[in-house]
Amino acid sequence: MAVYTDINEAELEDFLTQYDAGELTSYKGIAEGVENSNFLLHTNKEPLILTLYEKRVDPNDLPFFLGLMQHLFARGLNCPLPLPRHDGQLLGELSDRPAALISFLEGMWLRKPEARHCGEVGAALAAMHLAGEGFPLKRPNALSLEGWKGLWEKAAPRADEVEGGLQAEIAEELAFLEAHWPKNLPEGVIHADLFQDNVFFLHDKLSGLIDFYFACNDMLAYDVSICLNAWCFEKNGSFNVTKARAMLEGYRAVRPLSEAEIDALPILARGSALRFFLTRLYDWLTTPEGALVVKKDPLEYLGKLRFHRAIVSPGEYGLDL
Amino acid sequence: MAVYTDINEAELEDFLTQYDAGELTSYKGIAEGVENSNFLLHTNKEPLILTLYEKRVDPNDLPFFLGLMQHLFARGLNCPLPLPRHDGQLLGELSDRPAALISFLEGMWLRKPEARHCGEVGAALAAMHLAGEGFPLKRPNALSLEGWKGLWEKAAPRADEVEGGLQAEIAEELAFLEAHWPKNLPEGVIHADLFQDNVFFLHDKLSGLIDFYFACNDMLAYDVSICLNAWCFEKNGSFNVTKARAMLEGYRAVRPLSEAEIDALPILARGSALRFFLTRLYDWLTTPEGALVVKKDPLEYLGKLRFHRAIVSPGEYGLDL
Repeated sequence: MAVYTDINEAELEDFLTQYDAGELTSYKGIAEGVENSNFLLHTNKEPLILTLYEKRVDPNDLPFFLGLMQHLFARGLNCPLPLPRHDGQLLGELSDRPAALISFLEGMWLRKPEARHCGEVGAALAAMHLAGEGFPLKRPNALSLEGWKGLWEKAAPRADEVEGGLQAEIAEELAFLEAHWPKNLPEGVIHADLFQDNVFFLHDKLSGLIDFYFACNDMLAYDVSICLNAWCFEKNGSFNVTKARAMLEGYRAVRPLSEAEIDALPILARGSALRFFLTRLYDWLTTPEGALVVKKDPLEYLGKLRFHRAIVSPGEYGLDL
Repeated sequence: MAVYTDINEAELEDFLTQYDAGELTSYKGIAEGVENSNFLLHTNKEPLILTLYEKRVDPNDLPFFLGLMQHLFARGLNCPLPLPRHDGQLLGELSDRPAALISFLEGMWLRKPEARHCGEVGAALAAMHLAGEGFPLKRPNALSLEGWKGLWEKAAPRADEVEGGLQAEIAEELAFLEAHWPKNLPEGVIHADLFQDNVFFLHDKLSGLIDFYFACNDMLAYDVSICLNAWCFEKNGSFNVTKARAMLEGYRAVRPLSEAEIDALPILARGSALRFFLTRLYDWLTTPEGALVVKKDPLEYLGKLRFHRAIVSPGEYGLDL
């Protein structure tokens, strides 16, 4: 839940004069997103989302994120569309923060997705990968190998507080990934955070993808591995191969995976499990008790990491090879 | 900001089958209210508010609150209207909590109200007092003299932590109010919590009143004194007599105040200042550091209490006597 900055109606109405947004009739802070403050606006035209970008977002990245949404939307992907101001800019300022006005996407995220939903997520992810082609801006993935090493240096000294032996296990994992991390796989724009709360459904049909604030350039199959981790494990930690099969088939029906991409899935999944493990571990160790943000358990991703480490063949993901 | 309970779309859609609410297209937890969890729903018809009543609300009070909104709305007051279920009930259950579906009121609350807005608040309060006539249910004010004494018993031992000498000052104030608290003033249904965030405006015109979850039966002029405290002081603690005059004139234009009510205003305002002082003091002393809820400074209301104690004639409120 996130409203870090309150705004008053006078400054908001002033802000809106820069847009063709219709006449404001209400605005409510909404419990969505963790990094930014979000408001749902009603106008005499379409509802809108107003996002104020808080400290954790680098303002230099905003042209990439907003431009990407515009690019993807123009290529037929259902995603929020930033409204341009009268001067053509996508980014404005409100309450001393960078701010953008973005179309409101109807739909609901699934608290309990089933295999058929995972199939649609796979297809939508592939459609996003194709739609991202030709996007001219670049943003390297700050949360790949180098980023993991940086996080680990800060977290390692206290890692054994979370589970005994973790320090040695993760150091070894990092060394392995560094030595074997794939090269030469197809790259492009990836979402990099396509968890349940970023995929909307209406009547069991996927209605859109949101929250492109981790998007970056990286291997497309790495994005697939993030979704395997995010969608295909049950709450008890067990891997649901039916969901994984549905997701991978959904993906491949839209964008085929090469043999090299398929072979790399287990190591990519180890990497993406480690990525979420490390950010959660870091937050776990550094967030003060009782803070506004709910801490996510890093051990969930340690379990996933260990699962992928034990994979012998990518066929175990339910792939029809 | 308040979303204490998350809900999933399956249980929400199931809940909505009991209503004629249209087809759900989205729902967002909103940062509104402190006691309950609120969601803004979009449907293919009108937007709606879904409220889940959390622990701090006594379920036995809900028929009073919901029935009152229905009563006031039917008598022309702009306020949220609870939707009846197909079986005629206003109250349902969702996620093991009492839950109601309520019409969404467009409008925005003013962070920086001016005197002309205070005039409209006075008029709307009076209109609510008139519209409340004939409402058959009763709810005594739990936060009047007896309630204050109960709060004070719990807070008194630590009161001097907040300001030296407070223990003696408040004990004396309570004794004074108990000895002189008005009787025989006109009574009716009062809002009892008409702060800025409970009054919506559109284009400088008051568009409605919300949040009737402190409403009860008490002296109507006591409600006026609550608004004097809530609307007519500046952030620096100074009393704004222009705002008070506008509010009282707005009120009297709709419902005249008797001489007895006017004479009682200073003591009523002491009482209502003490009421908010005590609940804030109690929360201040009992809310753990770092909790989700923002603690409001009790000293703000101590300053208001002292202001009213120094009033010699109600003319000082800007009243044309």
